[in-house]
Amino acid sequence: MLTINRFCLLLSQRGYATGALTFRAADIIIKKTESGSSKPDPDKLVFGASFADHMLTIKHTTANGWEKPVIEPLRDLAIHPAAKVLHYAAELFEGMKAYRGYDGKIRLFRPDLNMKRMLNTAERSVLPTFDGNELLECIKKLVQVDADWVPRSKSSTLYIRPTLIGTEPQLGVAASSESLLFVITGPVGPYYPTGFKPVSLLADTVHCRAFPGGMGAYKAGSNYGPTIYVNKMAQAQGCQQVLWLYGEKRYVTEVGTMNVFMCLKNKKGGVEIVTPPLDGLILPGVTRQSILDLGRTWKDITVSERSITMDELLEAQQNNSLLEMFGSGTAAIVCPIERIVYEGKSYDLATMNKGAPLTNRFHDEIVDIQFGRKPSKWTVDVI
Amino acid sequence: MLTINRFCLLLSQRGYATGALTFRAADIIIKKTESGSSKPDPDKLVFGASFADHMLTIKHTTANGWEKPVIEPLRDLAIHPAAKVLHYAAELFEGMKAYRGYDGKIRLFRPDLNMKRMLNTAERSVLPTFDGNELLECIKKLVQVDADWVPRSKSSTLYIRPTLIGTEPQLGVAASSESLLFVITGPVGPYYPTGFKPVSLLADTVHCRAFPGGMGAYKAGSNYGPTIYVNKMAQAQGCQQVLWLYGEKRYVTEVGTMNVFMCLKNKKGGVEIVTPPLDGLILPGVTRQSILDLGRTWKDITVSERSITMDELLEAQQNNSLLEMFGSGTAAIVCPIERIVYEGKSYDLATMNKGAPLTNRFHDEIVDIQFGRKPSKWTVDVI
Repeated sequence: MLTINRFCLLLSQRGYATGALTFRAADIIIKKTESGSSKPDPDKLVFGASFADHMLTIKHTTANGWEKPVIEPLRDLAIHPAAKVLHYAAELFEGMKAYRGYDGKIRLFRPDLNMKRMLNTAERSVLPTFDGNELLECIKKLVQVDADWVPRSKSSTLYIRPTLIGTEPQLGVAASSESLLFVITGPVGPYYPTGFKPVSLLADTVHCRAFPGGMGAYKAGSNYGPTIYVNKMAQAQGCQQVLWLYGEKRYVTEVGTMNVFMCLKNKKGGVEIVTPPLDGLILPGVTRQSILDLGRTWKDITVSERSITMDELLEAQQNNSLLEMFGSGTAAIVCPIERIVYEGKSYDLATMNKGAPLTNRFHDEIVDIQFGRKPSKWTVDVI
Repeated sequence: MLTINRFCLLLSQRGYATGALTFRAADIIIKKTESGSSKPDPDKLVFGASFADHMLTIKHTTANGWEKPVIEPLRDLAIHPAAKVLHYAAELFEGMKAYRGYDGKIRLFRPDLNMKRMLNTAERSVLPTFDGNELLECIKKLVQVDADWVPRSKSSTLYIRPTLIGTEPQLGVAASSESLLFVITGPVGPYYPTGFKPVSLLADTVHCRAFPGGMGAYKAGSNYGPTIYVNKMAQAQGCQQVLWLYGEKRYVTEVGTMNVFMCLKNKKGGVEIVTPPLDGLILPGVTRQSILDLGRTWKDITVSERSITMDELLEAQQNNSLLEMFGSGTAAIVCPIERIVYEGKSYDLATMNKGAPLTNRFHDEIVDIQFGRKPSKWTVDVI
């Protein structure tokens, strides 16, 4: 699965990783809590605000490499105020979920893609790499320990947040000689408890999420902080999220914290599903990849990774060939878009006119796999 | 000094700050340590690795506003693993110094500019703002408590690091409802214990520090993490730092974590000092501003804030009109540049040929003010 050997080799060649090049799931130390906290009402879950009883922590130092993984009760981290993570955004994360299927089994969805992206981001962030298969095994053990926290629900799930931070207490902009990998989990409700709720977007012409030579293709903390202000501006204009554009031609890149898809009627009457290509500005989303992979097996549509500008998007809107538009991500799976505000004008999209059939189709197909209704090589059993 | 009233008003209008709109230095609670740690050898100081005995902490919640400032012994922070600072780079900082003058007085250098920039960055980062004069008074008290840590030296100083982080434990990309402002300090040695040590730069054509619509003009953590990888690449090519370029025309923007200055001989035989303008890509450095302000009072040079491309820089190098080039920042004050690697070629600059007289002149003038040898409105007495 992973090119970890290459990463480790590169890393050690560069002289900033010695000691254990990876931790091992077989070495894991488990310290269970004696008093678990009570589970929240599954109907009242706020995304990312409830946490399961345990966490996984693994320490790394440049001098001694990785220590043994520890599963322990969730606790505050003791972080020196000069730690690099607090000053220079020496941090990265992943987002994944554990799904309790109709058959009672708990599954992960394409976790190999999360491990691969996490390692890519670690390399770009000059944070320590490791064997992704080992982290995956550790995560499975963590979910097993907190299996009771995986909601018994048709749609709620256990969100999993692997995180890697630089903890060395030294105020210099340089690679961190001490790091902490930790994984926390928590139950999250269905994104659409009562059916799709489409969003409206501000197509912002001033701010920019990512740029060539930057970190837009990596899941690093530094991509997210700068967006909060822009999202506030979108909300002030009655929109929920930002449609991120890039450059003078105003290429459509992403929406909020999601990848973006446009369903277009082409001249021959067929349907083309378009998403921007992975050109360095786009996060390689797991859901994005899954939509592309699924779409390519369907014979009634074509799937394209190609650049698209705001002008093209508005032209499609004008001549009624923009059938649907949606965001994609781990939290929402798909998120229909019904309105775009751009240069002071508001454009009502056709997305929901017929109930967003294509958006629904991708959603249902993915959910069926995640909850085990449809067998797939994409799922990995936890229990 | 500060447009804090405007900030507070804006903030409260937007509904994300209620309670105390600022903390007050008069409310400060001081808890002194009984056993201070021993001071490091002033000749062996590593930048940012030694810390004084005390820190300042001030908590903020959206619900209740700012709490009272506390000066307390330096300690690890207890941070929830879901805190926004660890995931989304909800963090910003400042860098300033306390100087022990020849007359024994301890002074700060233009701290109003740090407070102004910190508030600007807080607003852009959707972290809570405050009255900058109050923070400045708190910082003075912190330096007074640890006055013994301000080196008795011709050139060593006490580095001061104000920091603001979002601590709300909630995994959503949104404004943090809980924040912590803290200030740590530590003694730092002279940047050039044995005279100027010029650096060589990799003029990188692939990566980019800042971009229009981004946060390059703010002192946010998200600007720094992404640079570590690029600096490693520079070091692999025998350079110490990166010369950051922007765009197809390859505008010269910054160097490492410093602003950049070029001293050019113009056609009339005069000398022009050029630095890129504050167009959104450039950090508004305190030393940068001081060099501009000083240079404008000198009659034998002109000072320009204007864009300059790599082509122009190389042309000046070619026809011997590039006299000196240097970086500027709080740590080094000025840092002479002797070599640039660009597109596989190495260019030896004339900077040190005659001992970098202009770079020296700016250095000495600023140091004389900082250490109280030359009276100036730019210094603020601490003790």
